[in-house]
Amino acid sequence: MSAVPSERKVTVQLGPRSYTIHVGPGGIATVGARMKALGLGKRVAIVTNPSVDGLYGNRVRQSLADAGFSPVTVEVPDGEEHKNLAWVAFVYEKLIEARLERGSVVVALGGGVVGDLAGFVAATYLRGIDLVQVPTTLVAQIDSSIGGKTGVDLAAGKNLIGAFHHPRLVVADTATLATLPQRELRAGLAEVIKTGVILSPELVRFLEDNHRPVLDLDEDAIMFLVESCAQLKALVVAEDETEGDYRAILNFGHTLGHAVETLTEYRSFLHGEAVALGMAFAVRLSVHRGLLAREAADRVIALLTLYGLPTEIPKDLSHSALALAVEADKKRSQGRVKFVCVEEIGRTKFEMLSTEELLAALDAV
Amino acid sequence: MSAVPSERKVTVQLGPRSYTIHVGPGGIATVGARMKALGLGKRVAIVTNPSVDGLYGNRVRQSLADAGFSPVTVEVPDGEEHKNLAWVAFVYEKLIEARLERGSVVVALGGGVVGDLAGFVAATYLRGIDLVQVPTTLVAQIDSSIGGKTGVDLAAGKNLIGAFHHPRLVVADTATLATLPQRELRAGLAEVIKTGVILSPELVRFLEDNHRPVLDLDEDAIMFLVESCAQLKALVVAEDETEGDYRAILNFGHTLGHAVETLTEYRSFLHGEAVALGMAFAVRLSVHRGLLAREAADRVIALLTLYGLPTEIPKDLSHSALALAVEADKKRSQGRVKFVCVEEIGRTKFEMLSTEELLAALDAV
Repeated sequence: MSAVPSERKVTVQLGPRSYTIHVGPGGIATVGARMKALGLGKRVAIVTNPSVDGLYGNRVRQSLADAGFSPVTVEVPDGEEHKNLAWVAFVYEKLIEARLERGSVVVALGGGVVGDLAGFVAATYLRGIDLVQVPTTLVAQIDSSIGGKTGVDLAAGKNLIGAFHHPRLVVADTATLATLPQRELRAGLAEVIKTGVILSPELVRFLEDNHRPVLDLDEDAIMFLVESCAQLKALVVAEDETEGDYRAILNFGHTLGHAVETLTEYRSFLHGEAVALGMAFAVRLSVHRGLLAREAADRVIALLTLYGLPTEIPKDLSHSALALAVEADKKRSQGRVKFVCVEEIGRTKFEMLSTEELLAALDAV
Repeated sequence: MSAVPSERKVTVQLGPRSYTIHVGPGGIATVGARMKALGLGKRVAIVTNPSVDGLYGNRVRQSLADAGFSPVTVEVPDGEEHKNLAWVAFVYEKLIEARLERGSVVVALGGGVVGDLAGFVAATYLRGIDLVQVPTTLVAQIDSSIGGKTGVDLAAGKNLIGAFHHPRLVVADTATLATLPQRELRAGLAEVIKTGVILSPELVRFLEDNHRPVLDLDEDAIMFLVESCAQLKALVVAEDETEGDYRAILNFGHTLGHAVETLTEYRSFLHGEAVALGMAFAVRLSVHRGLLAREAADRVIALLTLYGLPTEIPKDLSHSALALAVEADKKRSQGRVKFVCVEEIGRTKFEMLSTEELLAALDAV
């Protein structure tokens, strides 16, 4: 793989709420011009965290200033434990101080935590103002910045509070991935693997065949992954904007993953690592319920292992505590929890499990 | 006026989000059956305040239980000063405890404060669950329960945080108005007067001609007012669901009214009283700008006075403080504030005022 790839565009087709995802290295320098081209308002709040601000804040501010915007910067601390209502209230106050009005814009610069929190602020400040996502982690570029889900956590669980609020624009600068710690990169790849397992045998094959170029951040390989995932997610979101049903396939691995994150207070695992555990459980559950061939499950688990991701639930997490945490999650309906299972690589099936069935499955697999 | 009027229905036409407002005495006893007819989920949280709960809580719970629902009740304190994020967080926790899930329902039982706060909770809990409005004040029945605006206040101003989230059903039991204190009834009539001044010369005439029946809560007179206002608001909302532009006519009197409420910390005036002050200012401003005949403005001010509502801004509120509070309000766009002015009774015109122009107008009128 060689040569500098040019920028790719992916459009999320949502009628009047359609928006474009720009994928490519160096995109951060284009944020201001792209916002201007969309006619967005002059007052802008960049919501970010201190480390991302240190790396990319100045380039974003310069890009905005060059295009005639007046940005202020609001920093929230890094880490899922700060994705809560207290920090939402903090950002609201900063937007008031900066006199952001109905036509103003929130730019979310950072990973999933910043994107979810800043997105929720944009969804609810003055009943909703414009949002631009500038994701700087792999998870955010391929997943959380696309689709309009915003939200924060409660003590009882992740993303229990939120709103659907689509961005006007997503700029996924793949060059920012170079500054990602290796562990975060691998965690991001868990979501790439997820996308492949539920939607694309080709993507799974690519991940199996290109392990080194991917982990070495070969530009072509990364562009292929980010564009493929953005394209696949865009199709799912366009099909089912507010998670009526179909879109819930994207929760593959997340139901148990969220429970693990809650029980470990977001301290032991990165989100992608918890999702990897959840996916490993979900494919074993799929075999257990007679939906999936054991060889296919083994292939998924081998792929997770190839990328250095965990596949075994820690021994010190009791199955009953996990089942209760799953039950507290928002994916419950009429007392049963919807699990995304797999019938073959690239094809999913929803299974409704009672708490008892879940507990039995945890014990069995 | 005599004879028991039968229930009236008003439908807000919003395609798949359409819903019906049921107006009439005794409606509270029908809430459960109507929710059942809509196929709403079994788990229900009634959000209310202690005094309304004492008056109507048992009847709502009975109606829900009779229809097969399992309601819990969450009380928040009465008063605009509690319409804030702290109480929103309190209600979220109660919904988690009650294990409300995606298909569950929030029933807002009370006035505008309860409706706005419970509505915002329903809009954001698990990214949005079903909402039923059971308004028990005149303001809530004719205005705040209709149209999907939900939200809470920040220290900087009213309703700065919020979301659009339409109810599935509104039950406006006009019999509950009998327990309203006289002052609250009059404050509610300010919003009726507002509806007439911006949209309906007939309604203004009715209010002028039926002062005693209205204040004595004559059933026919009240039914006429609630149904007329609900119908007029439903048309405005159907025309402009998310306040793109036209719907902003409903802010008549509110721009200055909110500023007065903020500066007096919601303690001196009920919302409707502050709106009355705002309307008196708005018609004087309309004359000042050459839009409205002085006689028409005098007629509006006389009508407000007839219903015992204030029409003069308190002397101890400085004009510069008012102008600043208006500027902090969310109705600002590109540094100018949109005021709803009146060209004749029943017809409005938007005027964009700079802070300087507003200050000059406050001094002049």
